[in-house]
Amino acid sequence: MNPTDVAIYGAAGYGGQELLRYLAGHPAFRVTAATSSRHAGKTVESVLPGLAGFYPDLTFVTPDTPLDDAVQAVFLATPHGASEAIATRLLTARPDLRVVDLSMDFRPETSGFVYGLVETNRERIRAASRVANPGCFATGALLALAPLYENNALEGPAMLSQTTGSSGSGAVEKPGTHHPERVQDMRAYKVLSHQHEAEIRAEMARFGSKAEGWMVPQSGPFARGIFTVAHATLARDVDVDTLYRARYGAETFVRLRDGTPTLRHVARTNFCDLAVHRRGDRVVVLSTIDNLGKGMAGQAIQNMNLICGFAEDAGLLVPGANA
Amino acid sequence: MNPTDVAIYGAAGYGGQELLRYLAGHPAFRVTAATSSRHAGKTVESVLPGLAGFYPDLTFVTPDTPLDDAVQAVFLATPHGASEAIATRLLTARPDLRVVDLSMDFRPETSGFVYGLVETNRERIRAASRVANPGCFATGALLALAPLYENNALEGPAMLSQTTGSSGSGAVEKPGTHHPERVQDMRAYKVLSHQHEAEIRAEMARFGSKAEGWMVPQSGPFARGIFTVAHATLARDVDVDTLYRARYGAETFVRLRDGTPTLRHVARTNFCDLAVHRRGDRVVVLSTIDNLGKGMAGQAIQNMNLICGFAEDAGLLVPGANA
Amino acid sequence: MNPTDVAIYGAAGYGGQELLRYLAGHPAFRVTAATSSRHAGKTVESVLPGLAGFYPDLTFVTPDTPLDDAVQAVFLATPHGASEAIATRLLTARPDLRVVDLSMDFRPETSGFVYGLVETNRERIRAASRVANPGCFATGALLALAPLYENNALEGPAMLSQTTGSSGSGAVEKPGTHHPERVQDMRAYKVLSHQHEAEIRAEMARFGSKAEGWMVPQSGPFARGIFTVAHATLARDVDVDTLYRARYGAETFVRLRDGTPTLRHVARTNFCDLAVHRRGDRVVVLSTIDNLGKGMAGQAIQNMNLICGFAEDAGLLVPGANA
Amino acid sequence: MNPTDVAIYGAAGYGGQELLRYLAGHPAFRVTAATSSRHAGKTVESVLPGLAGFYPDLTFVTPDTPLDDAVQAVFLATPHGASEAIATRLLTARPDLRVVDLSMDFRPETSGFVYGLVETNRERIRAASRVANPGCFATGALLALAPLYENNALEGPAMLSQTTGSSGSGAVEKPGTHHPERVQDMRAYKVLSHQHEAEIRAEMARFGSKAEGWMVPQSGPFARGIFTVAHATLARDVDVDTLYRARYGAETFVRLRDGTPTLRHVARTNFCDLAVHRRGDRVVVLSTIDNLGKGMAGQAIQNMNLICGFAEDAGLLVPGANA
Repeated sequence: MNPTDVAIYGAAGYGGQELLRYLAGHPAFRVTAATSSRHAGKTVESVLPGLAGFYPDLTFVTPDTPLDDAVQAVFLATPHGASEAIATRLLTARPDLRVVDLSMDFRPETSGFVYGLVETNRERIRAASRVANPGCFATGALLALAPLYENNALEGPAMLSQTTGSSGSGAVEKPGTHHPERVQDMRAYKVLSHQHEAEIRAEMARFGSKAEGWMVPQSGPFARGIFTVAHATLARDVDVDTLYRARYGAETFVRLRDGTPTLRHVARTNFCDLAVHRRGDRVVVLSTIDNLGKGMAGQAIQNMNLICGFAEDAGLLVPGANA
Repeated sequence: MNPTDVAIYGAAGYGGQELLRYLAGHPAFRVTAATSSRHAGKTVESVLPGLAGFYPDLTFVTPDTPLDDAVQAVFLATPHGASEAIATRLLTARPDLRVVDLSMDFRPETSGFVYGLVETNRERIRAASRVANPGCFATGALLALAPLYENNALEGPAMLSQTTGSSGSGAVEKPGTHHPERVQDMRAYKVLSHQHEAEIRAEMARFGSKAEGWMVPQSGPFARGIFTVAHATLARDVDVDTLYRARYGAETFVRLRDGTPTLRHVARTNFCDLAVHRRGDRVVVLSTIDNLGKGMAGQAIQNMNLICGFAEDAGLLVPGANA
Repeated sequence: MNPTDVAIYGAAGYGGQELLRYLAGHPAFRVTAATSSRHAGKTVESVLPGLAGFYPDLTFVTPDTPLDDAVQAVFLATPHGASEAIATRLLTARPDLRVVDLSMDFRPETSGFVYGLVETNRERIRAASRVANPGCFATGALLALAPLYENNALEGPAMLSQTTGSSGSGAVEKPGTHHPERVQDMRAYKVLSHQHEAEIRAEMARFGSKAEGWMVPQSGPFARGIFTVAHATLARDVDVDTLYRARYGAETFVRLRDGTPTLRHVARTNFCDLAVHRRGDRVVVLSTIDNLGKGMAGQAIQNMNLICGFAEDAGLLVPGANA
Repeated sequence: MNPTDVAIYGAAGYGGQELLRYLAGHPAFRVTAATSSRHAGKTVESVLPGLAGFYPDLTFVTPDTPLDDAVQAVFLATPHGASEAIATRLLTARPDLRVVDLSMDFRPETSGFVYGLVETNRERIRAASRVANPGCFATGALLALAPLYENNALEGPAMLSQTTGSSGSGAVEKPGTHHPERVQDMRAYKVLSHQHEAEIRAEMARFGSKAEGWMVPQSGPFARGIFTVAHATLARDVDVDTLYRARYGAETFVRLRDGTPTLRHVARTNFCDLAVHRRGDRVVVLSTIDNLGKGMAGQAIQNMNLICGFAEDAGLLVPGANA
């Protein structure tokens, strides 16, 4: 079978880098174009030495470089605000293109883009050709709560205490990612004012839920991962253990754990690990994802697999490590 | 002025080590005895090389070594379950001894020990000679919520998402502190079943509050600190900003911050930094402490200063660093 | 093509875990047996949750469990001292077994085992059925120096300053891997007395060199990797840049870098990255490997691929990441 | 006794921050002026929240703000290249000012500045009023080798493999201190081309030694510390153990250790810990310092204490911690 040619826009950012890393071993996709305004003209391997040996012929081009006709599928790993214009330009010329956008420009669902949380929207995604890839915090929160909000079992706001790794801040250094100050630190930011609150609320509403997710985002001293503590009030009595087991039993990329999930076992994978606890009418759900994996590039490939008709898990079955 | 002679039981554990570190520079206390079952017979400086030069004459002795009559004050940094017997033995022989116990054996308040959260119990502590030093999670949670529960402004359980550093596990290695698995990990433990829940409830009840603290303790990949997210429901309308500012304005060791406190600015200090957020009838309070500082040895010295009649901040005015 | 059935002895240690992780995606090997004295009777996925979904039918057995006749290849990831007895037992019954031993029991070369540094011994390994997998420090040092000692261009001892990650201490916690003390620390150990000195000397001697490697092993605060600084004196004038480029140009798993190699770009891969510097008759060679990858499990699979007649890089072409 | 008024130039950089931190507890100095081009007009406590409570009246001013006549002593923690002009301006107006410069502008010794490695230049410093504070790498290297080069016992270049923490890169974020890429990484830079080589050579030459220090600087994933491996060839037979013990026995801030020094025991202190190993005519000396402590601000205060006539250790007797 001939591979499907793929282009990655914003390929030098962390989302793009992680796409390149996953796709180096993907059985059906072949990356033939990678854009980067900052590194245009340099070879991918010189900018990203970890990839040396995997993309000997690939050079970064500017995002306005004409797309080769052979390209069938496009990942937009461009910044919020930049994806929309690129997508519009590409899709005007080539309405048949498969597009997965990693920014929030088409979230939760605009311009014909379907919200790409596969575990809750699989069939709609399979029928689509354009996907808005969920935000990383939203992914961790929605997978933690989906069995509840899908069944209208949530009441009032779910309180989300979520801790993210530093790679969530992107590939360009910032004061908040200055190593001497981050390496043994923890802090919060955008308390009760993070943009993913709206994304979570909208997605819950699509299932008829009036619940909300109120967020306390925290920055942790690790590179990868989001640890989510979701504290929710049950609208009615449900057996949460049975509910979660039934809901996620057949899902490849959601794994139920006793007691607690851990970041290290999902780092550099597409898995979301979950654990559920209950006391009275309150429930605490814990989830872990890799913010660049299931929270970003892994999920984007899962979506692209679906809209291109490949096996959902193609190129994504990588186990997690202990150390 | 002659220094007051002090003995530290359990001096080779992290609580004890930190007491030795703080007391090396204390203007009024002089450590003349340090016990360690494990290291008895070895010099303190050979076991703890960071202290080299500070305790040239101090050798660990077993905990049953007779206490010198000159010793006026005793820190019990012994494990939970071990402090009680030692305290009973010492106090039977010397009822006048000043004792601060860092274990939970006398918490919240038994056998004449006063609960040593200075900011809420200062006068009772000053009048006492025996103090039960609060637990580290409880310290972070209670300081975050005190202005509310002291004023009966809390309703229902406060949900506590608290992340602790690895030094909270003690000085002896454990599977959970194995560096390759901890260094980039995060996980939860004792979800809704941590022993500090009872301590928090009891202390709130002393102020007439029926509120509770439900805990989701998490383990983070840093050595020192507890980051607390306390999510609470207000029982009535209060101006939380004004309330917190008025409540803590005169407290040396509680500092209000805009937006978020940070671990790095309280690490290796006795400070608790706080920030408060509100949306409708919900309030989110964030606090940071060093689990070995304000959460343990620092607070213990603060208590000992009080019951010995010294300045509350003696030996404790150490600023925090950025890096 | 039917997969080749493989057994892993010592599968719950870090070497074994990493073999399981790599082999989960290997096109030609299938793990059908995994031993662990400590975890015998438990499923692999319950002990190693990162592997959940990849080995649903595999349960740890004791090392004395009879080997299934279908098993053609055996990895011994057992501790130093334990491999020899197991290998002897297995090979007495089944002299045709392919065996790669990760311990130092058969190093540098005893009992018909060939020293498995592929880049310098490829053809001898290809012709063998038993391989002694090199030590991690030795791998980093020998790959750094091979172009020199193979050409008799080294004089006197090469001074090796090598820093290893904590996973090199194994999967069981030790004082030296206690997170609060390791997380921001660095120290040396076995200075000029590490057992790999003999392994390095013996391997150099096989190429007619009388050079030695004197080691200053250091422990760094990272989980994975060995950073090697090799300082050597040239026996004669050689153009080191050209020499290294020619020597390693065709090697898949050795990559030359300008200035410096980095740990992060080789972590979780089978690559060794190298950079060379010269001043007068002195040369400084820097190398990086993942101690569990090229320094252990990756290299073991590279060896097993060769002795089983598969492509040398089968299952090993995984790129490195930036973050 | 009235405190001596002190000004810090470049007080918002890491050197300046650390001076502020140490001086908050200094018995003889009082900081009355702090300059920062970047933060002029902001209070010190708002920019550096870890210092909250310690400098309530101090506001950053621009470096060209006139110096109050009461200021007797000045620390220049300004960048390389900036110190010279400031020092010249200040000293022209006030030749009697005590000045310690932390940059390399007056190193090793120009314009009447004495090289401030106290342990080897104490009496010359005591007689001076202007000190060029040594570089951090040079401090670690020179203290490791002083007993040898002072006694003309070194032959040829000492090979220095030195690993620094990220705070050595300064307070402003850089690509090399981007947390996701630094947190588990190690790399080298300026191999055999670091500017401290000249400083080391010049200082050795002052003692009549023709030895050199060839440097392989490395970046480690910790915030504070420099771990130095110095490999040297002895010019003649010396009993290195006895030599080092005799040389440093009376030094407060140099501590001899068996086997290895460690970073954690010197972090946030002014200590340099050392261990010595020998094989034949080769010697390996290991040293650890905090790059911001003995490698920068701590040493600067040690120097200022001397030139102001205070106890050398005033304000600097802070022990190290394990965790």
